Amino acid sequence: MDLKSRLQHYIQRTETLLAQSVTEAPSLHPRLQAAMRYSLLNGGKRIRPALVYLACDFCGGSEAAADWPAAAIEALHSYSLVHDDLPAMDNDALRRGVPTCHIAFDEATAILAGDALLNLAFELLSEARPELYTPAQQLQLLATLAQASGHRGMVVGQAFDLAHVGQALTLEQLEQMHAHKTGALILAALQLGAQAAAASEQELAALTAFGRAIGLAFQVKDDLLDIEGCTEVLGKPSGSDLAQNKPTYPALLGLQGAKEKLQTLHQQANAALSPFGSRAEPLLALAQYIVERDH
Amino acid sequence: MDLKSRLQHYIQRTETLLAQSVTEAPSLHPRLQAAMRYSLLNGGKRIRPALVYLACDFCGGSEAAADWPAAAIEALHSYSLVHDDLPAMDNDALRRGVPTCHIAFDEATAILAGDALLNLAFELLSEARPELYTPAQQLQLLATLAQASGHRGMVVGQAFDLAHVGQALTLEQLEQMHAHKTGALILAALQLGAQAAAASEQELAALTAFGRAIGLAFQVKDDLLDIEGCTEVLGKPSGSDLAQNKPTYPALLGLQGAKEKLQTLHQQANAALSPFGSRAEPLLALAQYIVERDH
Repeated sequence: MDLKSRLQHYIQRTETLLAQSVTEAPSLHPRLQAAMRYSLLNGGKRIRPALVYLACDFCGGSEAAADWPAAAIEALHSYSLVHDDLPAMDNDALRRGVPTCHIAFDEATAILAGDALLNLAFELLSEARPELYTPAQQLQLLATLAQASGHRGMVVGQAFDLAHVGQALTLEQLEQMHAHKTGALILAALQLGAQAAAASEQELAALTAFGRAIGLAFQVKDDLLDIEGCTEVLGKPSGSDLAQNKPTYPALLGLQGAKEKLQTLHQQANAALSPFGSRAEPLLALAQYIVERDH
Repeated sequence: MDLKSRLQHYIQRTETLLAQSVTEAPSLHPRLQAAMRYSLLNGGKRIRPALVYLACDFCGGSEAAADWPAAAIEALHSYSLVHDDLPAMDNDALRRGVPTCHIAFDEATAILAGDALLNLAFELLSEARPELYTPAQQLQLLATLAQASGHRGMVVGQAFDLAHVGQALTLEQLEQMHAHKTGALILAALQLGAQAAAASEQELAALTAFGRAIGLAFQVKDDLLDIEGCTEVLGKPSGSDLAQNKPTYPALLGLQGAKEKLQTLHQQANAALSPFGSRAEPLLALAQYIVERDH
């Protein structure tokens, strides 16, 4: 199967599981579930779940073992987008070409749907599944996710970002910010896949190095797309970082410097998995997609 | 030790653990940690942690085993207050006599601090602690907390509440709302204490019945305090439910009817633990405190 078909297959598994997880039982307040579904199922790229599946497969694990951490990390990513879009945060009205949650519903519902999606990630991972994981392994998945997403991970990255809009950052500060804001979850996705497959130390270390490189590459590419991308393909206005005077790689390194940075990170990602030969091909293909995507 | 000294002791353990958990390492953005500390350590009643400790002790568990679920459930309760107070939600400027988080800091920081506190609950419970729990037991603690707090528990109760401000509710709807909004976490506190102590089925069932009764009693008492309490003692304006035309027990049952309801629930709570004789005394004393408190 080529990467595109594989990603389609993974996306479908994740979306099926996510859709089930918010509709299994009748709700006291169906509007909350509607807002959760709206935010979960609006056609994201699903890169984090794909990384879980690919890393799990790379380490010899089954798709069934990857299903739950894949759905959990996407629920968590989805919450972060809902809250980031809020008026008090980035104040975005459009996401993936459609109104953001607080526009489609209302602000209170968006706050609560975000809370519920964050919580859902831990619901999905904490239900005992002895046919797939040992309890110790499941606990490890929960710890990996919790550490990556909280006040030492994604949330502090977002807080730092908001506090520094319009301010000059050093390259080191910018990397620290992105390592937390987006890098932590991308790295966690790979670690979750590895842990779900009971990976060896060597595999886990290689995936961690790979994850750090593509996590940063993902952000450099995002910054480049904001300058060079097209509003229609992006699903959001291009040039918005520049307009808001946000610190970006192109702003710090120049357009050419940012492109070189992206290539260097891509090479680092490749190098991390080179000892594994052809086994690493699907992950390397995903890294290439991240570096070359147009939205 | 009398109940008051015991509660003081538990409060101190919980607050020490919570304070450590947000200051252990230097932060990328100390202001986020400051907002988390501000919200965690502002002198709450700590009823949920107390219930964890008392239930764990009732089932023969150690204080050390109760520490982590107690801190986790208080972090979770704390997040819910920070988000509930936001302008788009209850829009409260005062909580426990001091400015709410979004007033003391700002709205974006309050949203993120709330997110980080919710996440913190799962961080605290997912770190492996083989000296205290089996992995299966720890997984059970995580599942109990996650199910109680999410879109089938606390969050949906809050969403339902917000959507029905100013609307007439039936008694059944009001009970459903409170069973989710406040009852789920109070029940979870007792179940967490029991599970941390590897309780018997009989103990768990009794604590569940006790928890349902005091969870509802807690809310009926809150409604009564809003009418009969004093702003200074409450730390928030009394009469605010009435002013906002919120559905309450006194509004549905009359003042006398609500007081009778409170007594009935108190009797149900006592009956649930009566088979256990003097072992149940501390829990029964806490139930009495909930019913008789003046704030």
